[in-house]
Amino acid sequence: MSATATASATLSAPQRLQPRIDACNTITPEAYASFVPFIIDGHRVGALTPWFAERALVACEAALERDAGGAVRVRPELTTADARSRAIAPGLRKLRDDGVITGWRDEIFPCAMGYGQEILLRVERASVSLLGVRAYGVHVNGYVTLANGTKELWVARRAANKQTFPGKLDHLVAGGLPDGMAPSECVVKECGEEASVPESLAVRAKPVSAVSYAMNYNGCCKRDVLFCYDLELPEDFVPVPDDGEVESFERFSIEAVIERMATTEDFKPNCCLVIIDFCVRHGYITPDQAGYVKLVQSLRLAND
Amino acid sequence: MSATATASATLSAPQRLQPRIDACNTITPEAYASFVPFIIDGHRVGALTPWFAERALVACEAALERDAGGAVRVRPELTTADARSRAIAPGLRKLRDDGVITGWRDEIFPCAMGYGQEILLRVERASVSLLGVRAYGVHVNGYVTLANGTKELWVARRAANKQTFPGKLDHLVAGGLPDGMAPSECVVKECGEEASVPESLAVRAKPVSAVSYAMNYNGCCKRDVLFCYDLELPEDFVPVPDDGEVESFERFSIEAVIERMATTEDFKPNCCLVIIDFCVRHGYITPDQAGYVKLVQSLRLAND
Repeated sequence: MSATATASATLSAPQRLQPRIDACNTITPEAYASFVPFIIDGHRVGALTPWFAERALVACEAALERDAGGAVRVRPELTTADARSRAIAPGLRKLRDDGVITGWRDEIFPCAMGYGQEILLRVERASVSLLGVRAYGVHVNGYVTLANGTKELWVARRAANKQTFPGKLDHLVAGGLPDGMAPSECVVKECGEEASVPESLAVRAKPVSAVSYAMNYNGCCKRDVLFCYDLELPEDFVPVPDDGEVESFERFSIEAVIERMATTEDFKPNCCLVIIDFCVRHGYITPDQAGYVKLVQSLRLAND
Repeated sequence: MSATATASATLSAPQRLQPRIDACNTITPEAYASFVPFIIDGHRVGALTPWFAERALVACEAALERDAGGAVRVRPELTTADARSRAIAPGLRKLRDDGVITGWRDEIFPCAMGYGQEILLRVERASVSLLGVRAYGVHVNGYVTLANGTKELWVARRAANKQTFPGKLDHLVAGGLPDGMAPSECVVKECGEEASVPESLAVRAKPVSAVSYAMNYNGCCKRDVLFCYDLELPEDFVPVPDDGEVESFERFSIEAVIERMATTEDFKPNCCLVIIDFCVRHGYITPDQAGYVKLVQSLRLAND
């Protein structure tokens, strides 16, 4: 047995899972300082890589300028979210045509100072991580409780041709929160689209938590808050992939999910935060285990 | 109707509860910098007020000294937890006799770098907040689920003669984690002592979370991590005060608890964090409400 294997055998479950959370928090305070601040109306709402800042300042000249401190700001003469959004849109489309913004979705994301606060700008979703703007999503833990009380989690396998994280294991249902949609509404919509969960069942999804992280994603500062939902499903319910984004669904015991997360990188990274939060809330991970406090605190490291 | 009443009527539940969490986080980074670091074996484990640092350096001269940077450190020639604990104990008793340390309990608390890490020193519990050392406790949400699915929380009223927070509303059971005891064991012990919950029922308490805070408490830096447990009780169970610390128990609907917390300071401050965490996990507070993200993130502000 190798030295590494010996060491890992003595680690607690929280210690074995900690690397999955750390992998989502790869923007350290020092790394964050190397990004270019993105300012709207005097508020810092994002973080651009220096190379993207250069490209954006040129392509989106009608909307953006460099301020005295070197930050990229939306021109102050644009005083409303509508005016700013109209001014920046052509430049973002040009950056798409130039191959700078990839994965265009024709989906609008709002930029604000914090969750539920005034919307300052609306941009195409594919530009959100390049702008380093906080994004929000919903993740649904779909689970069943067996007759003996044990729980099993429905796990999706992402389609092999999916643009992001192809083939990785994923939640029953997850999706970005579009502009103007309440999280509860988004859950019902995604349940239907991604797993053919009827609305009568989807409305039972219970909001239970929020996790957050700041991740270096292709060199960008991806800052997300994920709203976590628990959806207890009937034992005979079988989800069906509907929109081509999911290849298949499979049910895992919670112990098997923990083991899979601890020993592989098979799960989509940010799903690990939501599943670890599930394991904490349902008592599968306990404060009798070393590393519990650090694990729990690491689930919400990035402030809104 | 006053201007204040008009304004509060438009706030969401998370926004109305936020002040209860803020009241537990009154040590700002700036305030923290005004404390004197407490160092053991090169690790910062606490924060002393300047006046207590002066008193402790004199009374505990056998164990403590000022380092070159102005911090208070345990003398480096004391190389084990036992040696340090033996050396500091007489000085702490003298500070008790001089009226500096109040509320002596004859209960030993361990000081470490973080939860589950090597114990560096053991001190009397009454000195923990004066030393600004991280302490750990268990809090149990005792609740019942009625036939219609709604939940009610058992709430204790602290005895009027209790030394800390007399007469305040409290959890079914809560207590500091003594040296060497696992949280799960502490829950069972406190359940029996504080509410006459039999062991067969107490072992069903499920670990669900941890909250943390850094509070200015009588001028000291009180830094606590509370392990949260949910204990679902039979509808006909009635807790009985056992050790004189609780005056009475009463069952509240969750809505009534939220309203009481939002409109009064009747609950012991740190209980509010644990109860708000309960409300989040059980879906009584939702991300459809403004202020949700801030509320959830504020529950674990102080790192271990």
